[in-house]
Amino acid sequence: MRDTYKALAGANRMRKKVLIVYAHQEPRSFNGCLKKVAVETLSKQGCTVTVSDLYAMDFEPRATRNDITGALSNPEVFSYGVEAYEACKKRCLTSDIVDEQKKVQEADLVIFQFPLYWFSVPAILKGWMDRVLCQGFAFDLPGFYDSGFLKGKLALLSITTGGTAEMYTKTGVSGDFKYFLWPLQHGTLHFCGFKVLAPQISFAPETASEEERKQMMASWAQRLETIWKEVPIPCTPPWYFGQ
Amino acid sequence: MRDTYKALAGANRMRKKVLIVYAHQEPRSFNGCLKKVAVETLSKQGCTVTVSDLYAMDFEPRATRNDITGALSNPEVFSYGVEAYEACKKRCLTSDIVDEQKKVQEADLVIFQFPLYWFSVPAILKGWMDRVLCQGFAFDLPGFYDSGFLKGKLALLSITTGGTAEMYTKTGVSGDFKYFLWPLQHGTLHFCGFKVLAPQISFAPETASEEERKQMMASWAQRLETIWKEVPIPCTPPWYFGQ
Repeated sequence: MRDTYKALAGANRMRKKVLIVYAHQEPRSFNGCLKKVAVETLSKQGCTVTVSDLYAMDFEPRATRNDITGALSNPEVFSYGVEAYEACKKRCLTSDIVDEQKKVQEADLVIFQFPLYWFSVPAILKGWMDRVLCQGFAFDLPGFYDSGFLKGKLALLSITTGGTAEMYTKTGVSGDFKYFLWPLQHGTLHFCGFKVLAPQISFAPETASEEERKQMMASWAQRLETIWKEVPIPCTPPWYFGQ
Repeated sequence: MRDTYKALAGANRMRKKVLIVYAHQEPRSFNGCLKKVAVETLSKQGCTVTVSDLYAMDFEPRATRNDITGALSNPEVFSYGVEAYEACKKRCLTSDIVDEQKKVQEADLVIFQFPLYWFSVPAILKGWMDRVLCQGFAFDLPGFYDSGFLKGKLALLSITTGGTAEMYTKTGVSGDFKYFLWPLQHGTLHFCGFKVLAPQISFAPETASEEERKQMMASWAQRLETIWKEVPIPCTPPWYFGQ
């Protein structure tokens, strides 16, 4: 009986928690399929997987006074950053923000699944970052980059692009794909203390053949099988921009 | 009489149109002051200045099916990019998008005034970019970068930061400020054909002295006096990342 208990406790200790922050309007899209594959593959491993389906939640992207319940610390001149920080400390943030913060807090790994919009995340996901990763929760000053409050957690960007892989090379028209990752991987995730795993980029699924799409899906599933053994990328200018 | 007419016609030909896309919640903020100074300085020159005050407009940042009036071209599997492109061609985009497109169409210069959120624009402004600069209006495939549909227009990012100028240097913790400008200046503005003027970065106004804030405001006003004589920056990897 005791052995069974120990074995179960051991299995539970191993049970990793994953949050997928998912930003696509259409469940049958390629993004939707990548999300589904991730849920299935990680669940099979025994991971607990939570999905924040931002469009389905009609998630609010705008950072406004409505994010603070109760009185403001300075109602004369509204500063979102100051007020969100104070509200975080006093537990006066609005419930949709707090719900997301709890999911992040519990996660060992956060996967962001989205189509690239203007070399970045869609606005609905940018709003998730603006509002959820507030000072006092994700970082403080000091308390950022390697000292960010989310240190010990992993993050991974899983992106689909409109452009082809050739366009996103150093000599391509859109430049090395690493360039557009900088504000997200360094400026946001690393700033909050996350260790960042290599991005999963599915290039141009809309113009790819069915065979190529299946291949991209399979390589994502395969990668997730050994995701916990991966070494994070160095979030530094040399990795991004070369020497 | 004819001379007076000619002189007036000449003045009108000179009358430049400026659109300021402004994303701050508080009119009395430093961003609000920079916007006000720009409106005043440019109006005094005889420019026609239009402001899109995104928070005051409660601008919708989410790219959804609601952006298309009438039937979808493929209601089975919703693709925002495809549907927005079709709707643009058939003049079936929702009116808030069309209103902004008209303002952009008329402008010689578009100034984006915003506080840096996570090395990028606030979500409400990202939503403006995602929704307003759609295929068919701002670009086509082909018809991007130097052939983007907004060629002949100028764009300028006027940004306030939380971090200091020292943090945004090549050896600073946040890296050269040019790095975070890449997705915005190259990936978005240049992609649409805009010629991009050097960014106006007001570093850390919240922690600056009153004197320093006045100085930043004055230098913005002074720059705008001769803005039409400026030469655009080269939106290429060497300008951003060195050789």
